[in-house]
This record gives sequence, structure tokens and C-alpha cells, in this order.
Amino acid sequence: MRRDFLRAATLTAAAAAVPRAGEAQPAPATAKRPVTLADWGSFHVGGKEHVVSGQPVREVLFSPGGVPAKVDPNGTYLIGGMYAQYMVPEPARGRFPLLMWHGGGLTGVTWENTPDGREGWQHFFLRRGWPVYVSDAVERGRSGWTMLPEATGGQPVFLTLDNPYERFRIGDGPGSYARKTTLPGNQFPADDASYRNFVRQCVPRFTTTDALTLDAYLALLDRVGPSVVMAHSQAGLFGWRAAQERADKVRALVLVEPATVGDPAKVAALKDVPVLMIYGDYIAQDARWPTIRANGIRFAEAVRAAGGTVDVVDLPERGIKGNSHMVMMDRNGDEVAALVQDWLAAKGLWA
Amino acid sequence: MRRDFLRAATLTAAAAAVPRAGEAQPAPATAKRPVTLADWGSFHVGGKEHVVSGQPVREVLFSPGGVPAKVDPNGTYLIGGMYAQYMVPEPARGRFPLLMWHGGGLTGVTWENTPDGREGWQHFFLRRGWPVYVSDAVERGRSGWTMLPEATGGQPVFLTLDNPYERFRIGDGPGSYARKTTLPGNQFPADDASYRNFVRQCVPRFTTTDALTLDAYLALLDRVGPSVVMAHSQAGLFGWRAAQERADKVRALVLVEPATVGDPAKVAALKDVPVLMIYGDYIAQDARWPTIRANGIRFAEAVRAAGGTVDVVDLPERGIKGNSHMVMMDRNGDEVAALVQDWLAAKGLWA
Repeated sequence: MRRDFLRAATLTAAAAAVPRAGEAQPAPATAKRPVTLADWGSFHVGGKEHVVSGQPVREVLFSPGGVPAKVDPNGTYLIGGMYAQYMVPEPARGRFPLLMWHGGGLTGVTWENTPDGREGWQHFFLRRGWPVYVSDAVERGRSGWTMLPEATGGQPVFLTLDNPYERFRIGDGPGSYARKTTLPGNQFPADDASYRNFVRQCVPRFTTTDALTLDAYLALLDRVGPSVVMAHSQAGLFGWRAAQERADKVRALVLVEPATVGDPAKVAALKDVPVLMIYGDYIAQDARWPTIRANGIRFAEAVRAAGGTVDVVDLPERGIKGNSHMVMMDRNGDEVAALVQDWLAAKGLWA
Repeated sequence: MRRDFLRAATLTAAAAAVPRAGEAQPAPATAKRPVTLADWGSFHVGGKEHVVSGQPVREVLFSPGGVPAKVDPNGTYLIGGMYAQYMVPEPARGRFPLLMWHGGGLTGVTWENTPDGREGWQHFFLRRGWPVYVSDAVERGRSGWTMLPEATGGQPVFLTLDNPYERFRIGDGPGSYARKTTLPGNQFPADDASYRNFVRQCVPRFTTTDALTLDAYLALLDRVGPSVVMAHSQAGLFGWRAAQERADKVRALVLVEPATVGDPAKVAALKDVPVLMIYGDYIAQDARWPTIRANGIRFAEAVRAAGGTVDVVDLPERGIKGNSHMVMMDRNGDEVAALVQDWLAAKGLWA
């Protein structure tokens, strides 16, 4: 009853605040429930030095009308650091902090809002008493990026407007963005203004920085201490691997549409880490996701065979239908969040 | 009395939480005063389309062990959007939202923390009842970047470890980073761990995207409505220019070490916008800052001649000494924030 009321309230706020490039916008709706924070802030962790030499000195005019400065590109750079922002609610009910790790080509904004202006999963879990840490993976967002291909292994990939529409199981196959035809019953807010808001959240994606990124996530766990890790898509890799490297610090692993698996040689390390894997809708008809999911389920079976606990949830089988790859942004995303919340509570991680 | 108590408390927290790459860290100190938020969230504004054609299709393996996908780089991109995060305290005392615009080569993190782990100016003003909006300028942080030099006018500049130390009036001139010698009495937290935290906040700096960035700031003002704008360094340009373009929406302009001035042809547009300009220490002996400040003061005089109100504060003349270019991060940064707060209150913008 209460949940239905809240959903109606947030949808009303969303309808009033759908942003669109270049248009005047109302201020965000403020008729929401307040939250009290015991603490909030941000920091960077991890990273390493990288030395460049033999490059010419440049003169740079940083601002028009300013005074030029000589910039020597030779020297030592810090690369591979990672940004995290934390909010600690009062009272706290989660027994450990909840670390939210976004997927490829995106930043922590994934968890902060939905493209149609509703509250994101950051709000959902903070409102339920979880200390929430939202980070930007290495080379993305506020973690910065290195601009030195030789330090990061290559150039990132930057996506056109139509790519996520067709690859994230929003549109009904190739050419669907041009046709503006979504998969039937799709819950992603795919109206033009909302979809463009989503694309504005996308950033160039490095495909060659997994080792740097894993190191930074381990540094985050070492700083924060025992935590629940929630990872989406590409970050499935980092969630699995981080739990394998820091089984004492990952008290539970929630994988939302994980794109990859962990290290098959270290499945035994996961035996005391409860894992929840969640997959959305339209997978059977997709070109890539049947294989991605099958790999995930096979890995889950290997973890179970080594004594671990992995719960795999197929959302349509549970009656939760229409989910794209961006589950947390879908119109029914809070139903999925509630399922995660219930699972965490059942594991004794919330009081 | 109360302020002294708070400062002592935050310094203690900072001493317990100085992060350093690769080292285990304690969780952030939580013995701080709670704050109640009526609302918080984030969004993107602005941006435009950019079309690419004639490029070959690539096959990309997004994640190791994943399934390759074809990526067509041709098509329409959204570029120049801007990210903003807002926090609305309860009760609110600022009469308008406070928009915090960071300087070049940085992101909104500038306002969120100090490199030695104290609370940033975001905390300072939020705790005094200002609804605070912290944004990442175009092509930086969570605003993403375009990876298309032809769309943004060129390659950005990425700084080595020693560059800000010597250019931001922390070290005592060329070679000071290697010597680890700061300007006498310098208030920037320049111990090795803190300084590296600051460098981890730095991101590649585009010097060719001023028009895109100004457009995005105007879109932000159009969305949020009448606001107080606080701008640092490079963003001095955007603060002045945005106030000239949206004099009805910029109710006051606080410029912290502005690196550039506004449009000399439009000084009359500023006659009803009260402006505060703040300059730190060590300027006379710097290679570039005497000229930068003289340009700023000359522009202020032109604005006054056109009927405007500009207060210029030289911090050392006020007895606030030792400030680097990163005033908000200096150990005495809260003294400067208090000066800003008093000025805003005197202008009737806080109740």
C-alpha cells in the first residue's frame, strides 16, 4: 500500500521534470520525503604512477584572455585512481555499506536517477537505511581519464545515439532506433526526451583497463571495509573478481545483468559469499544475451559445486516483465530493487 | 566559538582519513553533525547533436569472455551535455540555490572535499541552509567527453604530478615539486598523501570548448531558475558570461580567483548583479597571476562604471594569509567561505 503510494508520487514528480536538451526546465520537484544523513562526502582511491618522456613542451592558453603557460607533458602522471561518493543515512539499517558499481560506458549516475526523472536505486537503498557508496570506474566520470593510450592499452569506444537503444534490449532489433519501435511491453522510459537523457549519461568506454579498474575496486574495499557489492553489466566481472580477491570484505554480491564471470580457477574463494544474479526480459530473442546469460549460469553452477550459494533470478519467470538491460532505470525498477532488498534482508544483512 | 569547535572536529576527522593510493583506509569518520535533505538527485542538461560519417565499422569485445558486438561509429552523437547533482537542505535558508562551478582540469569534486579529508565548501554552504548544485563542466567528469576532436576543437591537456604544485601557488616556483618546498605559510594541504589526492581529482582539460560549456551553464540556469553562482578559476569566464546572458537568473556572482573576465561589450548587463571577487596570497611574486588579477580588476572597474556593484577582496589585505589558487581546499578555506557567507547574507540572499 505504502509502496504503491510512493510510486505514484515519484511518477508524478517525473512527469513534471523530464529534461530535454536546450529547453527551459522546472526546478526538481521537492515534495519528497526528507532523509537525514549522518555523513556524506567523496574521495579518490587507488591508482599508480606512469612516466612519460621525450615529448616536446607546449605553450597552452588555458582561457581566452588569460596568460599562456608552458606545459611540459614529460614527467610522472597519476593514473587509474577512482572516485567514490558516500551518503550515510540516519538511522542506518544496512549492516554493511552498499557499494554500487556501474556498467561499461557509464558512470555512477546509473544509480542516481532515471532518465525520466524518478529517483534512482541510490535513493531506494539510502531510504531503506543503507550507507551507499556510488563510484565512477577507472577512466570514467570523476575518476578522470588518462589521455595516454600507452598507459591504458588503447582508445575507448564512444557510442552513437542509436547504439544503446538497440544493444540494451530497449528497441526491437537492428534499425529500431530509427523506427522508434521498442520491444513489446518494454519498461525502459524510451520516449525521446528520456532516452536522450540516458545517452547524455554515457561516456567513452575503455575496454582495456580491467586490471586497473579491479585494482581500484580492491582499494575501495580496503578503504571502506566489509561491504555489500552491487554490480551492473561490465562490473559483474569486477564484482566476481573482487569477491574472489577479498572474500573477507564482500559480504554479499548482487549482480544485475552481469556481462561476464569471475576467475574459474578461484570459485572456491566464493563459498562464503552469498550471490544474487538478476536477468531481465527479452534475452532469448537477443543476439548476444543468451550466450552471456548461459556463461553466467554455468559459472554460478561451478560456484555452487565449490560450496557457494548463488541465487539466479529470471525476472519474467517471477512475473516481473519488460526489463531492459538498464533494470534500475526501467519504470518497474523499484520492484526489482525491492526483490534485492528482500534478498539482502533474508541473508541477515539488514535489520 | 561554535565555528572553532567545528573546525577542530573536522581536522580530527581529516587526520584519521587521509587516503593514499594503494593503502588500506579507515571508513570515513561518522562523528559529524547530521544534515536533513528535503531532496537530492542529479540530472544532465544541454548538449547538441554531432554527426559522424565515413568511418569503418569495428567489432568490439566489450568485456573479456563476453560476446563481441559490432560498433558503427557513424551516426549521431550527443555532445556537450552537463551533469549536475543537487542537495536541498531542510530547513533551507538560502533564498536561491547556490550553483558551484569548478575550474579548469577539475570536476565538481573541487567543492566536495579537501585533499586532506576535511569537508568541502559543498558541506559548508549546505550546512548553512543553501540548496547546493555541484556540476561537472562540459567534457569533464560525469558530463562525459566526446572523443571527437573535430567536435570539440582539439585535444585536451592532461597534467603531470608537478604541474599544479608549481602553477597553483602551492610550491615556491619552478622545481618546487621536486624539492617539496612550498611558499612560506602556504595553507594548501601539501603533504605527499594529500597532494596526490588532489592530483587524482584532476582530469584532462579541454581549452577549446568554452562555447559548449557556456551553453550548458545557461541551460542549467534555465532549468534551475534564479540562483547564486559561485565560480572558480576558469569558470570565472562562465560566471561572468552567464550573468551577462541571464542577468535575471544570476542573483549574485561569487568569483574565487577568476582566471578570466566577461564580455567587455556587455558590462551594462551586470548592473543589477552583485559580484564578489576573491584573490588569494602570493600573487605579486607569481609569473602569471599579477596580469590575471589586473585584468580582473580592470573589468570590475568597467562594470562599476556601468552602474554595477563589484566587491574585490584581497585575502592577505584582510588578514587571511597563505591561500593558494585552490582556496576552498586550503586549511583556512572555511574562513574564506565564512567571508562569502557574510557577503551573501549582507546582500539579503540568506535569511
